[in-house]
Amino acid sequence: MKPMGTIPADFEITPLRIGGQEAAHWAAMVGDTPLFVYDMAVVQARIQRFRAAFPTIDLHYAIKANPFAPLLAAIAPLVDGLDVASGGELAMALPVKPGARISFAGPGKRDDELEFAIRSGATINLESSGEAARALAIGERHGVTPRLAIRVNPEIELRGSGMRMGGRASPFGIDADRAAAVARHVIDAGADWRGFHIFAGSQALDPRAIIETQAETLALAGRLADAVGVMPPLVNLGGGFGIPYFPGETPLDVQAIGDALAEALGKRALILADTRFAIELGRWLVGEAGVYLTRVVDRKESRGETFLVTDGGMNHQLAASGNLGTVVKRNYPVAIATAAPDAPTETVSVVGPLCTPLDRLADRVTLPVADVGDLVAVFMAGAYGLSASPTAFLGHPLPRELLVGQSEHS
Amino acid sequence: MKPMGTIPADFEITPLRIGGQEAAHWAAMVGDTPLFVYDMAVVQARIQRFRAAFPTIDLHYAIKANPFAPLLAAIAPLVDGLDVASGGELAMALPVKPGARISFAGPGKRDDELEFAIRSGATINLESSGEAARALAIGERHGVTPRLAIRVNPEIELRGSGMRMGGRASPFGIDADRAAAVARHVIDAGADWRGFHIFAGSQALDPRAIIETQAETLALAGRLADAVGVMPPLVNLGGGFGIPYFPGETPLDVQAIGDALAEALGKRALILADTRFAIELGRWLVGEAGVYLTRVVDRKESRGETFLVTDGGMNHQLAASGNLGTVVKRNYPVAIATAAPDAPTETVSVVGPLCTPLDRLADRVTLPVADVGDLVAVFMAGAYGLSASPTAFLGHPLPRELLVGQSEHS
Repeated sequence: MKPMGTIPADFEITPLRIGGQEAAHWAAMVGDTPLFVYDMAVVQARIQRFRAAFPTIDLHYAIKANPFAPLLAAIAPLVDGLDVASGGELAMALPVKPGARISFAGPGKRDDELEFAIRSGATINLESSGEAARALAIGERHGVTPRLAIRVNPEIELRGSGMRMGGRASPFGIDADRAAAVARHVIDAGADWRGFHIFAGSQALDPRAIIETQAETLALAGRLADAVGVMPPLVNLGGGFGIPYFPGETPLDVQAIGDALAEALGKRALILADTRFAIELGRWLVGEAGVYLTRVVDRKESRGETFLVTDGGMNHQLAASGNLGTVVKRNYPVAIATAAPDAPTETVSVVGPLCTPLDRLADRVTLPVADVGDLVAVFMAGAYGLSASPTAFLGHPLPRELLVGQSEHS
Repeated sequence: MKPMGTIPADFEITPLRIGGQEAAHWAAMVGDTPLFVYDMAVVQARIQRFRAAFPTIDLHYAIKANPFAPLLAAIAPLVDGLDVASGGELAMALPVKPGARISFAGPGKRDDELEFAIRSGATINLESSGEAARALAIGERHGVTPRLAIRVNPEIELRGSGMRMGGRASPFGIDADRAAAVARHVIDAGADWRGFHIFAGSQALDPRAIIETQAETLALAGRLADAVGVMPPLVNLGGGFGIPYFPGETPLDVQAIGDALAEALGKRALILADTRFAIELGRWLVGEAGVYLTRVVDRKESRGETFLVTDGGMNHQLAASGNLGTVVKRNYPVAIATAAPDAPTETVSVVGPLCTPLDRLADRVTLPVADVGDLVAVFMAGAYGLSASPTAFLGHPLPRELLVGQSEHS
């Protein structure tokens, strides 16, 4: 038997309820499995937690975490900005947020994407001096003043983060020692300079690491602004807030981070006195709100082990199968959504329908005894789930997505 | 500097030519990058190599390796059977191959998929006794005799294979010690029993390992057939033929495998005297025929390292980025498709446009000096490329696919 991560406290199980209804209700309503169910009440609870901890900080949603249109439409009015990573994402963001509240980061922005961003009034987080030159030229060609910020590759590494993006040679951002010069250049060229975007890593669960990184990021922003000689209108401090996927991991204490950031902000450089600050979150806002429901199609024994074979797998849940950025497969929290409270348990592996040994959703976990027709729930499915998975792999149908739990004020 | 795999001998480089034309020609023709170009002449050469080495063995194409419709249509007349892994793949196979020449393997086949296979006359490779019961019931309900084969989970492990599928508790197939009983059961129930499907692993590059495995598979098929007491019409020996992705790997000597198999067949069990044998190949037939072409959008320096940022990456080439079933990222063969023969070289990393450090196509390789507008070629892109990648990730457009190099007799 192997351990699995902890089911988010937002959900009741045996049987699993999402948004006030049993999981089986949602599967019956959409008429087919597999499906993703996103509970907006969980997202709203995260947003409230953020607002309480960071009362003076803007909240941005990084839509790459989950671009499902109804979810995006529900989140947009509750956050101060949307961050996009492609022209495609920009096209999804513009119907729900004004261009001036959207920023676009990502290496390898094509000319047509830069033009789209400039014409829609979105802020481009510049990743290189080459991109700065292309953006300025496109703005000039179209007679539009581009809104440009500098994405900085900081000399800061977010300790313990799942994805380190600072402290090393990187395709992301402009090295800190050249960032001020590029800012100066775009200001001199007549651009509307929006400030800095400084992102040191993501998926960190140690609040002390985030506290340290934010303090260093603030100090770096002050030094860079002094070097530019102009107050940056906005400093995006990045995100990095992790969620607990695996055994032994616990939720992040964001109040402690907020308290420390307030203290650090009190000591910020004078040139940042009137600067706004933003934190950009994707996974932390939506990851725990999503549940993937897939039906048991076969139950089989092989050499003394029991397998539940489900109608969806790594084609919809690449990360849960351990095939996206992880070296060792560990178990996400899973449950038998349709189990009775008093069901006996057993050790089983949950595997998807793909004809590859990579397609394993849970490896030798203890679950209530289940059979063909039962629903398996994979939690932590709200971020980097469907959109980060190879949906065409082996020709299975696309799953449905469903947003539930919207309160009247959302 | 890190090494990369060897560019397949089928291609000339600097500049790269595919199907008799420069890579830039194909990019200009489709009007956009990135794109996949598949050279049918390379596939035909592999098929000829197979036919020469295995004159008495049926060749099946496992379409999961690459289901691109024009490629599938070109391959279908050149092979004896198509293997599918879902109802979706069956729907792609039926227009180009009669149902009787199609077999369907894969755990977690849904009732609607079993019904589709039975009504179209495809052979179902049964993965469990539960699936056998469901298939028999569906056949009876529709008054159609189902074509059923037994997929066996053998007590054989293909040494050195990239994906081991035998020799362990597995979601694939029926354990060897129960396979004969399930075969007997479906025969007694009136099904058209088609034989055995025995698959021990894939992506092996050691011919001796494949030779050993095939000999053991033949022996197992003989023992199982004796236990059933009926001649199996077909034994699918599996595939497992690898292709050399990484530094130090070399192409498989299939002639040696064919010679050894002919010898082993000469000693097969009497009950297999009139059995047909098939080898099922996907990756080996099409993997080396595909080239992924992506354009350099930015060239940047960071802390002394040079990055070429391209307009496509892990969203189209998950495996090449090291995020599909590999623990350590190693470099696929890549080239600057548009380089002049006398271009000086440099050490660079090639990264895609996605805002994640996972999106790296080549890590610190030596390539001709390239700049914005040049085309990067990633080889070995013909199998488990586009269809096995998270195409929606970060909202970038889908790449085009192009089949070239078809000779008049294909």
